Amino acid sequence: MRRSYTQPARERRLPISVLGATGLVGQRVVSLLEGHPWLELAHVVASERHAGARYGEVVRWHVETPPPAAALDLRLEAPDFSGDLGSQLVISALPSDQARELEPRYAQAGALVFSNASAYRMDDATPLVVPEINPDHLAALASQRKQRGWRGAIITNPNCSTIGLTLALAPVQRFGLRRVLVTTFQAASGAGYPGVASLDLIDNVIPYIDGEEEKIEAETRKILGGWSGGGFDPLATRISATCARVPVRDGHLEAVSVEFERRPEPEEIISAWREFTAEPQRLGLPSAPQPTIVYRAESNRPQPIADRLTGDGMAVTIGRLRLCDVLDYKFVALSHNTIRGAAGAALLNVELAVAQGLAG
Amino acid sequence: MRRSYTQPARERRLPISVLGATGLVGQRVVSLLEGHPWLELAHVVASERHAGARYGEVVRWHVETPPPAAALDLRLEAPDFSGDLGSQLVISALPSDQARELEPRYAQAGALVFSNASAYRMDDATPLVVPEINPDHLAALASQRKQRGWRGAIITNPNCSTIGLTLALAPVQRFGLRRVLVTTFQAASGAGYPGVASLDLIDNVIPYIDGEEEKIEAETRKILGGWSGGGFDPLATRISATCARVPVRDGHLEAVSVEFERRPEPEEIISAWREFTAEPQRLGLPSAPQPTIVYRAESNRPQPIADRLTGDGMAVTIGRLRLCDVLDYKFVALSHNTIRGAAGAALLNVELAVAQGLAG
Amino acid sequence: MRRSYTQPARERRLPISVLGATGLVGQRVVSLLEGHPWLELAHVVASERHAGARYGEVVRWHVETPPPAAALDLRLEAPDFSGDLGSQLVISALPSDQARELEPRYAQAGALVFSNASAYRMDDATPLVVPEINPDHLAALASQRKQRGWRGAIITNPNCSTIGLTLALAPVQRFGLRRVLVTTFQAASGAGYPGVASLDLIDNVIPYIDGEEEKIEAETRKILGGWSGGGFDPLATRISATCARVPVRDGHLEAVSVEFERRPEPEEIISAWREFTAEPQRLGLPSAPQPTIVYRAESNRPQPIADRLTGDGMAVTIGRLRLCDVLDYKFVALSHNTIRGAAGAALLNVELAVAQGLAG
Amino acid sequence: MRRSYTQPARERRLPISVLGATGLVGQRVVSLLEGHPWLELAHVVASERHAGARYGEVVRWHVETPPPAAALDLRLEAPDFSGDLGSQLVISALPSDQARELEPRYAQAGALVFSNASAYRMDDATPLVVPEINPDHLAALASQRKQRGWRGAIITNPNCSTIGLTLALAPVQRFGLRRVLVTTFQAASGAGYPGVASLDLIDNVIPYIDGEEEKIEAETRKILGGWSGGGFDPLATRISATCARVPVRDGHLEAVSVEFERRPEPEEIISAWREFTAEPQRLGLPSAPQPTIVYRAESNRPQPIADRLTGDGMAVTIGRLRLCDVLDYKFVALSHNTIRGAAGAALLNVELAVAQGLAG
Repeated sequence: MRRSYTQPARERRLPISVLGATGLVGQRVVSLLEGHPWLELAHVVASERHAGARYGEVVRWHVETPPPAAALDLRLEAPDFSGDLGSQLVISALPSDQARELEPRYAQAGALVFSNASAYRMDDATPLVVPEINPDHLAALASQRKQRGWRGAIITNPNCSTIGLTLALAPVQRFGLRRVLVTTFQAASGAGYPGVASLDLIDNVIPYIDGEEEKIEAETRKILGGWSGGGFDPLATRISATCARVPVRDGHLEAVSVEFERRPEPEEIISAWREFTAEPQRLGLPSAPQPTIVYRAESNRPQPIADRLTGDGMAVTIGRLRLCDVLDYKFVALSHNTIRGAAGAALLNVELAVAQGLAG
Repeated sequence: MRRSYTQPARERRLPISVLGATGLVGQRVVSLLEGHPWLELAHVVASERHAGARYGEVVRWHVETPPPAAALDLRLEAPDFSGDLGSQLVISALPSDQARELEPRYAQAGALVFSNASAYRMDDATPLVVPEINPDHLAALASQRKQRGWRGAIITNPNCSTIGLTLALAPVQRFGLRRVLVTTFQAASGAGYPGVASLDLIDNVIPYIDGEEEKIEAETRKILGGWSGGGFDPLATRISATCARVPVRDGHLEAVSVEFERRPEPEEIISAWREFTAEPQRLGLPSAPQPTIVYRAESNRPQPIADRLTGDGMAVTIGRLRLCDVLDYKFVALSHNTIRGAAGAALLNVELAVAQGLAG
Repeated sequence: MRRSYTQPARERRLPISVLGATGLVGQRVVSLLEGHPWLELAHVVASERHAGARYGEVVRWHVETPPPAAALDLRLEAPDFSGDLGSQLVISALPSDQARELEPRYAQAGALVFSNASAYRMDDATPLVVPEINPDHLAALASQRKQRGWRGAIITNPNCSTIGLTLALAPVQRFGLRRVLVTTFQAASGAGYPGVASLDLIDNVIPYIDGEEEKIEAETRKILGGWSGGGFDPLATRISATCARVPVRDGHLEAVSVEFERRPEPEEIISAWREFTAEPQRLGLPSAPQPTIVYRAESNRPQPIADRLTGDGMAVTIGRLRLCDVLDYKFVALSHNTIRGAAGAALLNVELAVAQGLAG
Repeated sequence: MRRSYTQPARERRLPISVLGATGLVGQRVVSLLEGHPWLELAHVVASERHAGARYGEVVRWHVETPPPAAALDLRLEAPDFSGDLGSQLVISALPSDQARELEPRYAQAGALVFSNASAYRMDDATPLVVPEINPDHLAALASQRKQRGWRGAIITNPNCSTIGLTLALAPVQRFGLRRVLVTTFQAASGAGYPGVASLDLIDNVIPYIDGEEEKIEAETRKILGGWSGGGFDPLATRISATCARVPVRDGHLEAVSVEFERRPEPEEIISAWREFTAEPQRLGLPSAPQPTIVYRAESNRPQPIADRLTGDGMAVTIGRLRLCDVLDYKFVALSHNTIRGAAGAALLNVELAVAQGLAG
């Protein structure tokens, strides 16, 4: 996929670092930064042992389009937070255990860390942000800095399977979300590389992903909830998730049933989705999809193959809205797990922060 | 898969005919009849144009083990209900539109038709039977014969995605089934051959199967309901299904959430499943699995590859019983769609009828 | 995939018609024409029964990126060659049997038909053109017109599995091609839609594609051979092909062994590939890849997922050149079967003809 | 797959140990030993850290049928060659590096080691045996014992991709094998578990398997060659292999071209295959397929799904014999890589040794 940044480039693009740049999400970030009008890939950071090597020699590229030529020639750097990182934008595509250790050090040194890792998502003082839904949660950063004594900050984006659900629910949250039941059909790339063995996915489905159901349930409540000034108020909605891995490369599909407090008409729901526009669109963020949600009327959509690249992989495609005999309505949603659900999510958070004057 | 009929053969095995013998379900029936202790494949029936040809010349075999040598040499026959079929056992693996037309003619001519087609499943006078659950529904045959003036009868088995759900629910029906929500991951073979195009299933999921959700909902209510003597009393349970096709050859996996009237402990549910034994086991029907339900304690089971052949493909494997934040409990069930969900289901109905003296 | 035509648009773009516009290859043509600097999609032609309907209503879109908005609103037309089509460019993505009947009628009415069908590829008076290899074969059109009495013409492009082989061989043809043995791993999309059943490709390989081996052998000889003025002189090279279908969506991979008359060093072969540049590059044809051939030094390339979109799907990726103990050398080549192997091949032929002044 | 040992059990079955019993090949051996008439699984050996644990707790079962109940209760043992293993049969399913170290120690302690590992296959004093082809190579054991000072011995079976080729060639070796070119389509299970990542095999082919091409070429020459009394005389045939991994679970498919010294008629080749019977059949070895080679006349066979379980996975299925324009003939062969190509191969070697009185 070739990104289509149509905005003119800023006079001076802001330098950005990518932690975990050789991993599946890291390389997707590198790919999305190609031709970015506001940001310039300045540092690719990986583990100590690769420091000094060319990015192109070390990365095992899995994005479906060729790597940016400029990135291939960058030298990999070891993590470094010894100096003053005051003006540094950092996207962290680290595994959770490494993120837990390294991200606070970067934040302490002054960096603005936009993390795709799960380590701090549910932290009391760390915002978990989807720019279309809860940009106001960035207000928590003042508390975070005060509480931790950091000059920088950590801002997280949700798990790849949470993003589709929250973006589908946000526009209809006005009707009151009483209960939500979701069953996922998740792609192999969600597990990274090498991730799931081929013998587990040829002619098979694995109805279990470690920790995933808990993440969807907790993260959705936090994102759709509020920031009170002193803490996060998670939404009280009851949410139940079943997560399964299917033989698909990219694109998480989710079957969702919802019970509302004030049951709307189907047309109201579809309108709410189709008319949904939010902060990223108003701010004209370069990675913001136009629109965020595409509702398709065909009986058999969305499908991973047909819909995952909608909006350059940043939109959520929804279909099959119909009555549910157990809750009120049911529908199917799809989002690209490594773009909208990971690399693109972190990048959109960077853009939001830049547009709001937090950085640069 | 090689069947393991351990019973000694009867002195005289009953001849049986298979309608639609060359199709995916038909050939599975032919395969299951190999070495059957009670039944002998006597007639393979297909469309007029193949009449007279050897079965082996016409069938495009898709069962994973070689076709029975004896079957290959049988001559295909055109449908024939001109004479007195009084003692004839017939398994119908016809497409629904042909079943609608031909099955009543066979029944009128005296045949006992065991149909896998959907044509008459929801009919007022036709039993829809899962031998472990509602063998008593066979009592409806008296009404059927009277009402239609048939000497024979039509007995149906459920849709391939209904069977796993009903067998998982039957043992816990005693706790009262208030609401059931099911999301399916269905195999390609459920659509027959050629069925789903490979371009629709390589790296893809199709979240729609025409008519399937309605079938699961209606059939489950009928099977778990009663026969009053004058009609069927479907269960009042609210049921909601979402059906999707995944890149799997055989084995329908279902994620189920249930709300009970009297919420049991998890152990009670697991015990109910593990101890479930019913009419087919008591009667020692040759195709009855021992046990019908296998509950697995591993976190990542059932899976199509690992579990679809449990009980020679006639058992249902269940796993992941846990609390559901929306209804009471959730779990995952798996059954082989062309064995337990089609060919084996019809065959078990034949065996039940034979054991009860309806035939032979 | 989004095409990247970097050329400025001509003042007036030439109108072009697509026959078989709703098929898999036809829709790929429609997709490639989006934003084309020289050509404008003017007519989408399908069978009589769809005439008058919007393209968007009828097409079942299988390209991985959304259909061009303008195309969706075009009205489908029935085939029409009643008037004077003197200035009309036509790409035919018809099935071979329809192509056999309709293409000559279009040619007779004056159209320049660029056909992806096999119907006339091996015809005595019809050029089978790969612009990088045998643009001189277009000289055969004079004979064709004279012989058939046509004002227009038919120009064909090769079969999807021939293109990768011929482009890999053309740069090394100077060393003399004595014997060529090729085994293909062909993608599902090569069979069109619905094409191959999913039950034939999940967990399976089909080592047979009807007519394919003969096509590769004969077409390769014709393309690499000459046009004498009076007829085609096929290359005398002995070619043997084995063709198999594998569970891949797009991208035909080919394992090739070659025996030369004058055995070159490996470096000479790799240089010949890497430095290969030809007429389309010299003429700056909009769809010409730069370069046509990418040689990769990694041990495990090319692969369909990683390499099929190289050069916007118009390049051929080659790897694994090494000694062959039976012939001289062996290597692996990959090309995108519906772009370089079909839609893009026809389009490049149109561009060649336009650049050479045959049209417009 | 359920094995069908039809032989009556011996009075006393010989105890057998399996090294690497928890791996993919090891568990296949365990599965094949269920109900074996001559052999009884006595010891399951794995790495030190699992010693003492129940086999059923440690093994991650990947065979498509349930594990033998008796095996699940066996205690895993650490490798032990301290005592006198004089009468012990051992099947080694170890990785090559462990095999290199441990197998000689077992042989020194007196055990008869039947190894599936590649470590000693090409060793000067170690027979590489396919019972249908070169049972006479067992004569090399006398040299081996003398040279190494072992009381026991090591007997190897070929690589999973070699077996299909050698069994296809052996019956036609009488016509003189001048040149052989083979291209493989290999299954994921050939790489063990976890083996190949799903992201490398969904919608993809990998045209490279480390060391595989060299193994096929060298092993085939050794197996089809002779034992002179003092050393192995490999066949002088020129062999060239290209090996690729495809999205298939089990079953290696191979496209083969052959040049003969005395070119036979096609019927002679097919007869040679169909009439091929050898030592294992004559000796009535329990795992010997009847017949070893199945030639199928259909145009599109063999296929992994349809043919890999032929002869309980011990037969080789061949099809598509036709003229080759480069060598003399070409055809396609298929064998089950973890049964005939690994576990079953080792087991058949054990049976051969037992029947010849080498053991027990």
